[in-house]
Amino acid sequence: MSIRIGIYGYGNLGRGVENAIRQNPDMQLVAVFTRRDPASLEIKTEGALVYHADELSKMTDKIDVLILCGGSAKDLPMQTPEMAKLYNVVDSFDTHAKIPQHFENVDKAAREGKKVAIISVGWDPGMFSLNRMYAETILPDGKSYTFWGKGVSQGHSDAIRRIDGVLDAKQYTIPVEAALDAVRSGENPELSTREKHIRECFVVAEDGADKCRIEEEIKTMPDYFADYDTIVHFISKEELVRDHSGIPHGGFVIRSGKTGENLENNHIIEYSLKLDSNPEFTASVIVAYARAAFRLNNNGETGCKTVFDVAPALLSPKSAEELRKNLL
Amino acid sequence: MSIRIGIYGYGNLGRGVENAIRQNPDMQLVAVFTRRDPASLEIKTEGALVYHADELSKMTDKIDVLILCGGSAKDLPMQTPEMAKLYNVVDSFDTHAKIPQHFENVDKAAREGKKVAIISVGWDPGMFSLNRMYAETILPDGKSYTFWGKGVSQGHSDAIRRIDGVLDAKQYTIPVEAALDAVRSGENPELSTREKHIRECFVVAEDGADKCRIEEEIKTMPDYFADYDTIVHFISKEELVRDHSGIPHGGFVIRSGKTGENLENNHIIEYSLKLDSNPEFTASVIVAYARAAFRLNNNGETGCKTVFDVAPALLSPKSAEELRKNLL
Repeated sequence: MSIRIGIYGYGNLGRGVENAIRQNPDMQLVAVFTRRDPASLEIKTEGALVYHADELSKMTDKIDVLILCGGSAKDLPMQTPEMAKLYNVVDSFDTHAKIPQHFENVDKAAREGKKVAIISVGWDPGMFSLNRMYAETILPDGKSYTFWGKGVSQGHSDAIRRIDGVLDAKQYTIPVEAALDAVRSGENPELSTREKHIRECFVVAEDGADKCRIEEEIKTMPDYFADYDTIVHFISKEELVRDHSGIPHGGFVIRSGKTGENLENNHIIEYSLKLDSNPEFTASVIVAYARAAFRLNNNGETGCKTVFDVAPALLSPKSAEELRKNLL
Repeated sequence: MSIRIGIYGYGNLGRGVENAIRQNPDMQLVAVFTRRDPASLEIKTEGALVYHADELSKMTDKIDVLILCGGSAKDLPMQTPEMAKLYNVVDSFDTHAKIPQHFENVDKAAREGKKVAIISVGWDPGMFSLNRMYAETILPDGKSYTFWGKGVSQGHSDAIRRIDGVLDAKQYTIPVEAALDAVRSGENPELSTREKHIRECFVVAEDGADKCRIEEEIKTMPDYFADYDTIVHFISKEELVRDHSGIPHGGFVIRSGKTGENLENNHIIEYSLKLDSNPEFTASVIVAYARAAFRLNNNGETGCKTVFDVAPALLSPKSAEELRKNLL
């Protein structure tokens, strides 16, 4: 019997989850829930239905895990606790500073509903967090570094679009190669914000807009760009669509640490991702954790979990025997 | 109260475990057990005692976790089941083909003794296994690659030493850069044994030995060298000691996989290790899993586990709140 999945929210992430479910034969998409008019949505899974979000409370006997594909700013802080009373849920809440509060809210709701909720699943938070934790635990005397990119930052792209005279924009976060090399050498360098990442911007300006002023406004924008070396390119609308429509991302988690009687031996642990599609990869991680949520709840567990709390074997469709025989 | 550790076997790995315990303030080395004369062992931990292995059955109330530092060929198949009846244990059993049988034997003993045993801990098997599993589960449509090195292979070094006329030798396994690049490009190449690794040998020959014959014997040795491109250097005893006394190792686990409606997006997950000391890094992983073994048994669990079965948070000395706040 396959694991019956519901998706709440059908943007880039929701569509990614739909695709990922098709790559996992033990899972089945039952329904997509939307706050839009259900008739306006065209999904790709035969046999799955589209419902208005108002119907969410009525499907509890037909769905094993509900995957929440809303945004971290406005949707998930409300939706995840609400839904964790009714369903096993997985979300990708990624506002790092607010995770402890979100955890408390979701934990209370999931215990009340006797469900399992796994929050902050994806790659950062998610796989990167796991790798930070494993590496720090193995090498207590050391230093950890996280680099992001090369990839599109939605928040920074949006910030540029709000500038007067800008029609559209894409911003890439790029790790500085020299910084990566210094970390890999075991030097444990102290790196400033500027030394770790470059920001490269592709901007479509309105006809006749003052490009010098736009470039200046970008480069001096506090929080977003002022602390970085920022490169600005003005291109045409056509070039933006042709060359910058993808949503690639990735990054590096590196720990450099020492062992030995006099800490004379150095070790480098490096985990990296190079992703053609940020939302599709995030969705693939989420779907694996949906399998774990289902199994944990079947084993009688309830409450909120993160990637730290989930034994790796619970993610895999393979049996424990198969894993030991073929992957250990 | 700290976790009280015993070490059984005081070779490179045992000494590495002793050092690693000193890097973990919540742990304390209580005793080292040896089959040699205890008076012949000089350990570095003040307050810890050295006992003959015959005393192992008498310390069950003084040790929380016994770390088994013997070899996989002859020691662990006997020792781990025997000790799992008395103690929570961790071993680094690394004969991949025999893991299922070892698991069965240890599981039976640990259940009998109501203890937790975690087997095959280290980096391969161990962290590499975990990364193979996480990556394969996240990207079901893809291909996984494991490369080893650059590092010393003890087995291959020993094989060279058995050749007539050879006084000493060190063999390095080296991944082929072009193969790594092909994998990282997402091409999913089929790679032969020869295409993946080079074997480089540093050999000290007896005075007057026939170096041509030795080189030929190395390069044509079945299983060990015949299927590889092998480089042989003859050097002096002094050069071997000066330049090749370390035990570095490492390697790469790479998965390349596709997502999307038509599998049009490629993703690369890469995990790599660059280790100055193979046994010390292995020891550092083992010590983290000793913490988990202690906690699992305290929670009422018994039986044999592998890295796949252990929730990541159990490895860390930090609380769940701390992990969520600072590492998620």
